[in-house]
Amino acid sequence: MSRHTIRFLPYDTKIRVESGERLLRAAMEAGVHINASCGGEGVCGKCRVIVESGEVEDGFSDRLSPEDVQKGYRLACRARVRGDVDIRVPIESEIDAGVLNRMVSPRKTARIQQADLEELKEQGLFLPPVEKHYLELPEPTPEDNLADVTRLVNYLKIHHGEHRLVVDLPVIRKTPVALREDHFRITATLARPVQENRKTRVINIQPGDTTDKNFAVAVDIGTTTIYGQLIDLKNGHVLAEAGEFNAQLSYGEDVITRIVFAEKPGGLEKMEALAVGTVNKVLSRIFKQSGADPDMVSTVTLAGNTTMTQLMLRIEPRHLRRSPYVPASTLYPPLRAVDLGLELGDHVTALFYPAISSYVGGDIVAGVMGSGLYRTPKLTLFMDIGTNAEIVIGNRDWLACAACSAGPAFEGGGITFGMRAAKGAVEDFSIDRVTFEPMVLTIGDVRPRGICGSGLLTAVAELFEAGVIDSKGKFNRDLETKRIRERDGVWEYVLAWEDQTQIDRDLVLTEIDIENLIRAKGAVYAGCQTLLSEVGLQFADIEQIILAGGFGSYVNLEKAMAIGLLPEMDPDAIVFVGNGSLLGAKMSSLTNRIRRDVVEVTRKMTNFELSETNSYMDHYIAALFLPHTDLDRFPKVKERMRR
Amino acid sequence: MSRHTIRFLPYDTKIRVESGERLLRAAMEAGVHINASCGGEGVCGKCRVIVESGEVEDGFSDRLSPEDVQKGYRLACRARVRGDVDIRVPIESEIDAGVLNRMVSPRKTARIQQADLEELKEQGLFLPPVEKHYLELPEPTPEDNLADVTRLVNYLKIHHGEHRLVVDLPVIRKTPVALREDHFRITATLARPVQENRKTRVINIQPGDTTDKNFAVAVDIGTTTIYGQLIDLKNGHVLAEAGEFNAQLSYGEDVITRIVFAEKPGGLEKMEALAVGTVNKVLSRIFKQSGADPDMVSTVTLAGNTTMTQLMLRIEPRHLRRSPYVPASTLYPPLRAVDLGLELGDHVTALFYPAISSYVGGDIVAGVMGSGLYRTPKLTLFMDIGTNAEIVIGNRDWLACAACSAGPAFEGGGITFGMRAAKGAVEDFSIDRVTFEPMVLTIGDVRPRGICGSGLLTAVAELFEAGVIDSKGKFNRDLETKRIRERDGVWEYVLAWEDQTQIDRDLVLTEIDIENLIRAKGAVYAGCQTLLSEVGLQFADIEQIILAGGFGSYVNLEKAMAIGLLPEMDPDAIVFVGNGSLLGAKMSSLTNRIRRDVVEVTRKMTNFELSETNSYMDHYIAALFLPHTDLDRFPKVKERMRR
Repeated sequence: MSRHTIRFLPYDTKIRVESGERLLRAAMEAGVHINASCGGEGVCGKCRVIVESGEVEDGFSDRLSPEDVQKGYRLACRARVRGDVDIRVPIESEIDAGVLNRMVSPRKTARIQQADLEELKEQGLFLPPVEKHYLELPEPTPEDNLADVTRLVNYLKIHHGEHRLVVDLPVIRKTPVALREDHFRITATLARPVQENRKTRVINIQPGDTTDKNFAVAVDIGTTTIYGQLIDLKNGHVLAEAGEFNAQLSYGEDVITRIVFAEKPGGLEKMEALAVGTVNKVLSRIFKQSGADPDMVSTVTLAGNTTMTQLMLRIEPRHLRRSPYVPASTLYPPLRAVDLGLELGDHVTALFYPAISSYVGGDIVAGVMGSGLYRTPKLTLFMDIGTNAEIVIGNRDWLACAACSAGPAFEGGGITFGMRAAKGAVEDFSIDRVTFEPMVLTIGDVRPRGICGSGLLTAVAELFEAGVIDSKGKFNRDLETKRIRERDGVWEYVLAWEDQTQIDRDLVLTEIDIENLIRAKGAVYAGCQTLLSEVGLQFADIEQIILAGGFGSYVNLEKAMAIGLLPEMDPDAIVFVGNGSLLGAKMSSLTNRIRRDVVEVTRKMTNFELSETNSYMDHYIAALFLPHTDLDRFPKVKERMRR
Repeated sequence: MSRHTIRFLPYDTKIRVESGERLLRAAMEAGVHINASCGGEGVCGKCRVIVESGEVEDGFSDRLSPEDVQKGYRLACRARVRGDVDIRVPIESEIDAGVLNRMVSPRKTARIQQADLEELKEQGLFLPPVEKHYLELPEPTPEDNLADVTRLVNYLKIHHGEHRLVVDLPVIRKTPVALREDHFRITATLARPVQENRKTRVINIQPGDTTDKNFAVAVDIGTTTIYGQLIDLKNGHVLAEAGEFNAQLSYGEDVITRIVFAEKPGGLEKMEALAVGTVNKVLSRIFKQSGADPDMVSTVTLAGNTTMTQLMLRIEPRHLRRSPYVPASTLYPPLRAVDLGLELGDHVTALFYPAISSYVGGDIVAGVMGSGLYRTPKLTLFMDIGTNAEIVIGNRDWLACAACSAGPAFEGGGITFGMRAAKGAVEDFSIDRVTFEPMVLTIGDVRPRGICGSGLLTAVAELFEAGVIDSKGKFNRDLETKRIRERDGVWEYVLAWEDQTQIDRDLVLTEIDIENLIRAKGAVYAGCQTLLSEVGLQFADIEQIILAGGFGSYVNLEKAMAIGLLPEMDPDAIVFVGNGSLLGAKMSSLTNRIRRDVVEVTRKMTNFELSETNSYMDHYIAALFLPHTDLDRFPKVKERMRR
């Protein structure tokens, strides 16, 4: 896709964006504030900009008169970039924005790290887990009436040097028919042993030549959403990806309520069935999307937190939520996908990622494996931030981990107008330093109906940096704007007026919301700090941060540092791996090397129970400020505050 | 039980029998003919004998007058031995029997060979397949909150030196509950690897100390009957044994009809379900018999012919009955007993004995393993005689096998009054060389209602040796007895008159019946001969015969040699192992050594398809005589015939 340069005047800030990007998003990306409160739906008419040179597509609205259009006015939220353009932010915003006082700070999100098959090969990490061989076997005769399976095994021995084979029962069952369907021309699927001295398993036999179709499925069993990917084992390409809400959601949003339900008679079986049902829905979607034949799937790898894994494997979870928080097991044996209830061929083995503890589960281990953390020499902080935040610190030599309960704020929970990152959620925000008017971007560019985690984080950071709230998260009661007000004894900021929302109410952010966010970020920061100090390190020693999880993808790194969620460091040292659980599941599908290494990694990873670590509460209390009680930890924020 | 000596006069033949034995059976055993045709029910009154010294119990009947009783007359069929006695066979029989002409030949059945755990230990063959350990684990604390399974594995590592463990999913599922039921005091069941470099599996965990209860189940899946044994793994004792007719019987008596049925839609699943259902009935009976807790069963081993095995494993059997007779597989992977549908704990692994070919199956391999044939230096002929006779020749260095279709005669099939070996079946027979009056023993000592395989074999041998039939099996038409007669153009011998049977008809043996037996024995003998000549040997080289199967147990060895079913050799060199399939299954339960060796044995065993071996038909034709066309092969018979 072609890219174009936008120059924003009068700041002379340039940004390159993809063709078709909306001007308002480009401005936010560039750190240019333009008042806008309807989320990009074009109804507030505030985001007027002037196209000074070049052309944009659309951007018209009945909020613009023909004369305005004639002069080059467009609504930034509707206008799409189709070539290089110069855009002037009109005087109303320009002055409001206090252009002279403000450093334009382009948005920094984490660099996205992706791994692929070629890279694995280059790094010598490629050990194919599943291979297909096309064979033309001699047909039996009275003089040569070996058993079908013996014929197959002997052929593989003689012609392919396969000397250590075992044959699964489903293959034995298929062999008599499959061999005779196409004159003993068949494709055999071989599953390589994960451990070196084990045997190769013949897991499938298909008539004819199917060697060009060899797929894997990777599944992330999230508490909220279950994602699946169909992967082509030939080249590592993702052929399809889909997600479905975990059907367990109707029995509770978090793992605790699920465990409580599972403790009731029949509850565990219900939880198992719901999770399995959701995975099957995901499977059916990825097969539909890709048009792939499910029979060509050779392996499935699943990763989830310890609760999700125990529920899906029908393992009694009650002790996960009771001190001393003991999981049933950390390793799960390979099992047949059909035994698990998955709608896959009966030759498919399902592998679950191992866990570390009750609250550091297979999803995190998958992230550690998939992101390559376990192989890096760099001292790395790995964070997967959600209702529970899991933290891993270490490198290829050692690993330590902990989980802390951040509460649901990062996912929009416990926030007055909080919502998940879905259409209509405020996902980005900027505030005019003079007028305190907002610039609001929503997912889907529609009128806002709530605020999601990343929107909340950015909003609080902006409010703090604009001096609207203080380091305790309390509103400055003296500012002259009707957007800041007290209602029922609680102070709040109006993100969008009633008529610019989908909810027929003013969309606000309250002091209580802000307090919840501060608790959440404080818990995560204190968790990192505690884990670091337990291993004798400090934030300054960290060479790299890996962010995983849905939350990490949209987070404006500068803002996350501004509120003290992330330690201050070079944003280029922060990478985002997306859904770490899914990534790890995918990588395990591509090479046995990761399956082999993971057991060692789980042995190596030391788990710290923060609730059993005395210093954690002290660190937590100290972190209940913006950005932190100890401002010296955040020199850049300190410098900005000074100015 | 005490034993007593019976002296039969006037022959002065002595035999020692167990207390309570009936006189008529003892006489048959001793080779003493006493006319008797009602099977021992006491209705014909022919078997009068005189007790000359000592006492017997019972033996009274309304066929004996008070005077007779006073004189010491008793009915041999009803009288039981309770002390040493002298018994005179009265003059009527004495003269009839041509006492001076006849050599008394005591019945020789094969020596029974049994193997037990102590013997395995002495021979260094004991590798326990399953072991139980009682453990008192430390309870978890906040400082020590390892996963339950990790706690278990670590404890086994530290306190029991178990360094290579894997834990099955059913164990993981049980662990959280089982550990907490009795304060972390549990019994762990460990399944040892069959192959040396593999890991030990933790297959079960039970609260408290259950180490004294560790059982195995052995199952023989016969075409007709399914037998099971409950075995105590501590000492190898059989705690219970039961058999049930294979429920597949209602779909046909032999494997071919079962295969044909399995080829119909749903037929295979039906056959599987019927076999599994029968095994479950057998299991329930052995648990009831022994009062054992099914949960204490740790392993199950099954053996059956190739068809029974494929049907029970739901493997398409159609090619087993079609040239070139290709089985799906000869090795079957271990599988979970519950996956098979067996009503056993979900921790139990089921192992099926491997097969050699379509008609030499796991039952025969089990016999070869269980009887120790595969370890003996002696050149051995192993025979399992039924509708299909399987033959193995070899020793510890090499093995060759073949199957031949004997037809159903040995099991009473295709015989006018043929029946299975059940109550009322003529099972033993002797004929008076002068009067041609019979001595008939039936199973259960009731009036006869048919004749079973061993009765048929003995009857034909006696008729032949008494000159009633010639070497082609044709009746001597000139004998003066109304027992030999022609009916509807077919000659026959009356075993029992109408009023002495349960069937309200004369019970007869026809020339056609005799012809069928000759075909059956000819097929088996020719099979042995062909297999021997294929490996460059002859009968004289055989050092030992092992008989397996229900048929072998009752066979009078001299009679089997007399008709030419077995080669003439010292009866002491013939051993009977009973149900070889069940024996092998039992032995595999006791030691992994046999499981380890069996794969090598199947590789070593060369299968010969008799239908593809040209000489077989020649050998068969030559064997269609009593005892054989070449009488020099049977010098003892020749000598008796000369006399």
